[in-house]
Amino acid sequence: MTQRIDFATEPARYRHWKLKFDGEVAELIMDVDENAGLFGGYQLKLNSYDLGVDIELADAVERLKFEHPEVKAVVLRSGKDRVFCAGANIRMLAGSSHAHKVNFCKFTNETRNGIEDASANSGQKYLCAVRGTAAGGGYELALATDRILLADDGNSSVALPELPLLAVLPGTGGLTRVTDKRKVRRDLADAFCTVEEGVKGTRAVKWRLVDQAVPNSKFEAAVKDAASKLAAQSDRPGRDAKGIALTPLERRFEADGVTYSSVKVEIDRAARRAIVTIQGPGVPPPASAEAMHDQGAQFWPLRLARELDDAVLHLRLNEGEIGVLIFKSQGDPSLVLAYDAFLEANKSHWLAREILNFWKRALKRVDLTSRSLVALIVPGSCFAGTLAEIAFACDRSFMLIGTPAGDNRPAATMRLSQLNFGPYLMSNGLTRLATRFLGEPDSVGKAQAATGKALDAEAAEALGLVTATFESVDWDDEVRIFLEERSSFSADALTGMEANLRFAGPETMETKIFGRLTAWQNWIFQRPNAVGAEGALTRYGTGVKANFNPERV
Amino acid sequence: MTQRIDFATEPARYRHWKLKFDGEVAELIMDVDENAGLFGGYQLKLNSYDLGVDIELADAVERLKFEHPEVKAVVLRSGKDRVFCAGANIRMLAGSSHAHKVNFCKFTNETRNGIEDASANSGQKYLCAVRGTAAGGGYELALATDRILLADDGNSSVALPELPLLAVLPGTGGLTRVTDKRKVRRDLADAFCTVEEGVKGTRAVKWRLVDQAVPNSKFEAAVKDAASKLAAQSDRPGRDAKGIALTPLERRFEADGVTYSSVKVEIDRAARRAIVTIQGPGVPPPASAEAMHDQGAQFWPLRLARELDDAVLHLRLNEGEIGVLIFKSQGDPSLVLAYDAFLEANKSHWLAREILNFWKRALKRVDLTSRSLVALIVPGSCFAGTLAEIAFACDRSFMLIGTPAGDNRPAATMRLSQLNFGPYLMSNGLTRLATRFLGEPDSVGKAQAATGKALDAEAAEALGLVTATFESVDWDDEVRIFLEERSSFSADALTGMEANLRFAGPETMETKIFGRLTAWQNWIFQRPNAVGAEGALTRYGTGVKANFNPERV
Repeated sequence: MTQRIDFATEPARYRHWKLKFDGEVAELIMDVDENAGLFGGYQLKLNSYDLGVDIELADAVERLKFEHPEVKAVVLRSGKDRVFCAGANIRMLAGSSHAHKVNFCKFTNETRNGIEDASANSGQKYLCAVRGTAAGGGYELALATDRILLADDGNSSVALPELPLLAVLPGTGGLTRVTDKRKVRRDLADAFCTVEEGVKGTRAVKWRLVDQAVPNSKFEAAVKDAASKLAAQSDRPGRDAKGIALTPLERRFEADGVTYSSVKVEIDRAARRAIVTIQGPGVPPPASAEAMHDQGAQFWPLRLARELDDAVLHLRLNEGEIGVLIFKSQGDPSLVLAYDAFLEANKSHWLAREILNFWKRALKRVDLTSRSLVALIVPGSCFAGTLAEIAFACDRSFMLIGTPAGDNRPAATMRLSQLNFGPYLMSNGLTRLATRFLGEPDSVGKAQAATGKALDAEAAEALGLVTATFESVDWDDEVRIFLEERSSFSADALTGMEANLRFAGPETMETKIFGRLTAWQNWIFQRPNAVGAEGALTRYGTGVKANFNPERV
Repeated sequence: MTQRIDFATEPARYRHWKLKFDGEVAELIMDVDENAGLFGGYQLKLNSYDLGVDIELADAVERLKFEHPEVKAVVLRSGKDRVFCAGANIRMLAGSSHAHKVNFCKFTNETRNGIEDASANSGQKYLCAVRGTAAGGGYELALATDRILLADDGNSSVALPELPLLAVLPGTGGLTRVTDKRKVRRDLADAFCTVEEGVKGTRAVKWRLVDQAVPNSKFEAAVKDAASKLAAQSDRPGRDAKGIALTPLERRFEADGVTYSSVKVEIDRAARRAIVTIQGPGVPPPASAEAMHDQGAQFWPLRLARELDDAVLHLRLNEGEIGVLIFKSQGDPSLVLAYDAFLEANKSHWLAREILNFWKRALKRVDLTSRSLVALIVPGSCFAGTLAEIAFACDRSFMLIGTPAGDNRPAATMRLSQLNFGPYLMSNGLTRLATRFLGEPDSVGKAQAATGKALDAEAAEALGLVTATFESVDWDDEVRIFLEERSSFSADALTGMEANLRFAGPETMETKIFGRLTAWQNWIFQRPNAVGAEGALTRYGTGVKANFNPERV
């Protein structure tokens, strides 16, 4: 795939979605342009989607959070007459590489988690109004919302037809949300997931698949009523607050990297690694929440988070052979801590809350990136507070002791802030430090007691905050050996190992989706019954039935 | 594979393990006969193992529970001088089919869970004394015990070399137990799992990989001391109690089935399904715990559980193309309930406790069997109490309303006992009914209020205990349609779907192992980097390095 997939967009460029605003309630309308697929070779019929459609959805979900503090409830619906959404486009899936399929599913999952995060933590509740068929990814989209209304018209239905139709699993959380969010009884769930045509009307309510089935004549009134009730539960500021514009990212793509205002990605293709350098803030935080609001998308923490998020997505989808991401940082740690203190002090302000939530999601995106991650902490770096989370998200972190000859900067330090102990929860529901110190919970307290202190390499290592520290005489060799060793391993085995080691402790619906469900789906995406010459995905639409190997594994 | 794998064995036939008894402490000694592999083509060097070795281990673990109430602590050790255990035999793995690899790992996982169950619920604590190398599955075996002692002799080590050596994951819970049981810090876990030679001595203690590192001169004394301390924590009855002999199973293999004393397996190869018929008890329970003890392995609940367990393992490993297991039962439901009441009344007796624990594990084995499971509840059946759990373990259960013409037996009923609400926890830590009714917890209470009642089809359906009920005029068609539909689906997609739908709600270390870890391992077991012509498993031992596709998925 030589075409670069771009994750940046804006409503004026949407081909597939429309936003309508009416006071506290917005409508997010899916109306896919079947001729505007991201790649050639398929048409996006029946409101089916590809990654391009989902990039717009993800953009809309973020803009609703930041640009529309007045919106307390969002109604997700279809712009087509007889269909809600037919799910991921099958021809697109059949024609995609394994890696693209897997990364596509990961992103669509993150987008749906972003919808649930809006509801849980931004006071922006989602309602899904299903008229017509919501099949596969279409129903999974509905599952991500707080409430599902289904038209009871003899036609509208919800379905997960992946297994009978394509010999794959619903890839975007469907099975997990059916069992763990909707809490559908397991035998009914089994029946539901094996019946191609899905379930309609009151039976869908009885089986807990939707919340209400409403006759057509009363459908719009019921949607309006449900949206008002959801809006009434919201703690969004409402019309008193003004949104900020998520202005276009400042970035420049080059042959071997990308340069943003605060992030630089340098790619070494031969060595299959990328250096991601984070630039600390250049100026102190603004004097007030109002001043932060005036800075809008230029406010350093938000600007950086958006850039980092875009960079990670770019690396995931467009640089598949880059096996190691090396995180570095440059800047003044005390300025980073000043911003952390500012956000902490203003966390009840809606915009600060959104920025903290955005960082939480961006850091989760790092956790879930299937590349080896390493942080190099050297003089001049600013792995402090929020930026230290990036080091904690890494598989390894190395810290240089002292200063190399000829370098007259002070030795590297790591510093912690209150934000390391609260808002940035991982998918498992714990902070990165709580996860790190699962076996020695006292270490979390010891780290917290050191909040604000400039921790040199020895101190950081003693507190368990870094993997290893090296003298400058050994540094280059140690780092080189690690990187060479890493690139000698099987990419697949690393993916599997990291997916297991990164998420210790409790499991949540999110970790179940990315662990259990995704791993099974990836397995099936490899199996001849799905993707072989006679497999169901390959033969879909040819009129020839798939030929299955009956052996059970 | 035409050779039938037999899961029944006994100490007199062991080739690979020795048991030694010394009062409250037993030694379980691994001393693999390298020429006694289950299949040809490999030698079990360096105490490496195949399924045959693990079948003996599983047998020994069960016999320790039932035959040795006096044993409060078990020391697991090696009978070889310089090696503890080199893990699963690599040539065996490289030469095995995907299905065999996956089922082999599932069984070894269940065996290790059985060790942890002995410690948690049978008062039989396990200690691992590691001298020499404990690599891969060898260290995973140690991880299943309560306490790991490592000889600090400059040679002994623990290691998980699968990733660097073979491009696969440790397949028997290693990663999950490292993060969630030993709670090793994630970056240290990452380092540990990528270093082929493993970790020795005090560093292994510091990294939480083992509990003690002890110089050779003091090793035996330390093992003895640790075993005594573990024994002191035990609530086993000790020397006052006498064990029962797990006598050989009564069974007869035929071309299309197996007949046990209380279980009959009838295989329809053309239709790829098997009927498993459970025979209820023929006589009432004994008058006392002593009388139960006198019956020993003939006591109906124990006899049936052992037979059912053996039948399920036989179907898993020897009948790979059988896609659906149809569970039926025959007998007097009130007699089944009488046995349940007997076990409940005597649950503080060590033997009754072991029998309840065995049933718990046998039912979990059913849950984890990757075949579609359906229960048919018809006149003459006895899905009551413990046997009703089998129906609750099924993906679907169908119950006949009334009695077909010409059948003069009473209509089928389902009955519940106290055992449906307590001892038979699934891997997720919940009862099957609590899992079933996750979305409507009140239904558990309603079912409990109906304990003992004879529930006809309408009543069972109203309580949500069965998937569907049919009149006799529709029964044959409905069952046939379900079975035909099921066999039309992809075996792989069904495996993935069932693995997701069967385990709603909380995750435990066990569900993480069978969900997240196993699914990733299965994925890797499909990938060219591991099993392709130039993959690491294929090229192991050839002197030629593997050639990896660097693409990250």
